[in-house]
Amino acid sequence: MTRSLYLCNVRLADGQQVSVSIVDGRIDALGADAAAPRDAQIEDGGGALLLPGFVEGHTHVDKSNWGRPWYRNEVGPLLTDRIGNEREWRRTSGHDAAAQSLALSRAFVAAGTTRLRTHVDIDTDARLRHLEGVLATRQTMRDTLDMQIVAFPQSGMLIRPGTVELLGEALAEGADVLGALDPALIDGDPVASLNATLALAQRYRKPIDIHLHEPGEIGAFTLKLLLDRVQASGMQGQVVVSHGFCLGALPERERDVLLDRIADLRVALLTSAPPSCTVPPLKLCREKGITMFGGNDGIRDTWTPYGVPDMLERAMLIGMRYDLRRDDDLTIAFDCVSDAAARGCGFADYGLRVGARADLVLVDAETVAHAVVTRPVRKLVVANGRIVARDGVLTPPRA
Amino acid sequence: MTRSLYLCNVRLADGQQVSVSIVDGRIDALGADAAAPRDAQIEDGGGALLLPGFVEGHTHVDKSNWGRPWYRNEVGPLLTDRIGNEREWRRTSGHDAAAQSLALSRAFVAAGTTRLRTHVDIDTDARLRHLEGVLATRQTMRDTLDMQIVAFPQSGMLIRPGTVELLGEALAEGADVLGALDPALIDGDPVASLNATLALAQRYRKPIDIHLHEPGEIGAFTLKLLLDRVQASGMQGQVVVSHGFCLGALPERERDVLLDRIADLRVALLTSAPPSCTVPPLKLCREKGITMFGGNDGIRDTWTPYGVPDMLERAMLIGMRYDLRRDDDLTIAFDCVSDAAARGCGFADYGLRVGARADLVLVDAETVAHAVVTRPVRKLVVANGRIVARDGVLTPPRA
Ligand SMILES: [Zn+2]
Ligand SMILES: [Zn+2]
Repeated sequence: MTRSLYLCNVRLADGQQVSVSIVDGRIDALGADAAAPRDAQIEDGGGALLLPGFVEGHTHVDKSNWGRPWYRNEVGPLLTDRIGNEREWRRTSGHDAAAQSLALSRAFVAAGTTRLRTHVDIDTDARLRHLEGVLATRQTMRDTLDMQIVAFPQSGMLIRPGTVELLGEALAEGADVLGALDPALIDGDPVASLNATLALAQRYRKPIDIHLHEPGEIGAFTLKLLLDRVQASGMQGQVVVSHGFCLGALPERERDVLLDRIADLRVALLTSAPPSCTVPPLKLCREKGITMFGGNDGIRDTWTPYGVPDMLERAMLIGMRYDLRRDDDLTIAFDCVSDAAARGCGFADYGLRVGARADLVLVDAETVAHAVVTRPVRKLVVANGRIVARDGVLTPPRA
Repeated sequence: MTRSLYLCNVRLADGQQVSVSIVDGRIDALGADAAAPRDAQIEDGGGALLLPGFVEGHTHVDKSNWGRPWYRNEVGPLLTDRIGNEREWRRTSGHDAAAQSLALSRAFVAAGTTRLRTHVDIDTDARLRHLEGVLATRQTMRDTLDMQIVAFPQSGMLIRPGTVELLGEALAEGADVLGALDPALIDGDPVASLNATLALAQRYRKPIDIHLHEPGEIGAFTLKLLLDRVQASGMQGQVVVSHGFCLGALPERERDVLLDRIADLRVALLTSAPPSCTVPPLKLCREKGITMFGGNDGIRDTWTPYGVPDMLERAMLIGMRYDLRRDDDLTIAFDCVSDAAARGCGFADYGLRVGARADLVLVDAETVAHAVVTRPVRKLVVANGRIVARDGVLTPPRA
């Protein structure tokens, strides 16, 4: 039987009143005169602003404490303190990657996110346990949340023998993307580490998403090595650099040479817009044609107490980080958690257009900027053509 | 008749279960064995975390659009664009400083703020109109909100003849503090501008709170001129430097010399912790004994679309800006919107202690850090010994 939904009396960002006709999970018509499909469930949007379902471009659902008792953070300040503390915590806390990723994923959907890229820890202690948990969550949420999984060597790759093999197993068992982490400052050997990452990605024919926290000149050095290898291996358009703090701290001329190569190789950039780090220049990257998009990074975990599974709040933080104040500038912040993120991650059939998967959010707001700044309750969330949340709360599955 | 309230079954940040006995607006007893005053209204806190009423150290209630239709920001990028745009907007928008400041002030109280310092525009167009509006709000809210008013030359002082005289009138008519703005980059003559500010403050025997956005070396130059004059005039302990972006951008040795003088002269520093600007070093300032506190700056006005009248959210943004992640570090962020802010502004009788004004907030949170990060609904707000809000909503005034 055909499954159809008709969402009438909603408003586009340009002010136009429209209706949306949805058939079998797809947008069948969208406009002032879109007619109701036969036998459709009819939903009156009450004049609310229509947005596309949000896209989380980078998070870590496998290790969030969302919905669990407060985690009292007493961790030391170094990256290695945090990595070590986390491994210890996993062993002692009854960590359950399936339950924890499910709780956070459900909260994401309730707040309007319908596509999500998550990095999942792969290491020689946890082995594939996190992956298995997140795969279970992906299966549970398959009708609602389009989830990409990155096999991520959080504890380093070459420095922990056996990790490369585990990453390969993860890619074979369902991870979509190969992750990587600071080839110089964590792995200690940027050339060997990047070579191993590229070889693994090519062997399993998977794209790459690398955490590059390395600052300033060392980050630039590693980034150049990466770009050389993207070019040599023909992986144009298949690599994301997450964080890329170095791109916010280089002399302009050096930075611009790197940005031009990044654009040329169709490497995408991800930022969580951290207020305490340097960040790649958002507007300049966009002018150069680079896809730059946004994500929370970790949410409420042993690394950070911050973060909420609300991409409008992340868009607000992006707007604040880049001092975007004008309404038209704030649409850039929203683009980072919608179209640009879908493009950067390679989510197919995305957007407010005929033929796309019907992932929609309604909010009471006058403009996109207004929605970003006020983060209003999500009146309605439609995922894959089904109503999945009302007023910020998941609806029970339909019989 | 004596007015008394007994708040039982609440929890201090250290985990201790206590009760609070409140008589005639003051904390009469606070502890595990505090007894109920005779004929007290009894309120069971349900085990919630007890916090002192929050302190907003720097905002602009006179020109917020809070609660009004969305303001579509199409302003140019320069400080002078924003100043000119705002004066134009005031002329054409039906701006009403009394109504707008009242709407925002009420929202502050509903979210737990019981003390607030607001800068109020004084210029040769608006003259004292904003001050009169905010004085009316202060009068309306006098039993609830302890409000300090800064007479603020938003359009410049020396560059707009007549402004010095208006600032004097404002101080005579009820403003508590003399404001100032970028003596070099706006007023164009740092020595003359600072001399005029100091003379005015001394004539009216008022403290000073200066907006110092001037960056790097020019900011340091102006700041030195200011400190010289604080010392020469004996205004130690009576000056706040708001923003002080330059203190986040100087070579360490030069910065430390300035910080030592700031500490020595008991000048306090205010930050809104903007993620796109350099900021004074919070922990170092505290180590040197400087009172550094927090505020929103403008909320939802023609300058910025951002900001909410919620000091827990501002504390969270301070925490993020300074990369505070540990629970004990996050208590510093909360201190910036509570004790340190009360000290920096000179609000008397503040805090969770016997004899202080009974300004209290209850939230469901395990620790102060938890409250800062999750910004939970305010279960109860007590101001001046009266329950003024429940579950984030103002209670109707009692008959
Ligand atoms: Zn990450
Ligand atoms: Zn200000």
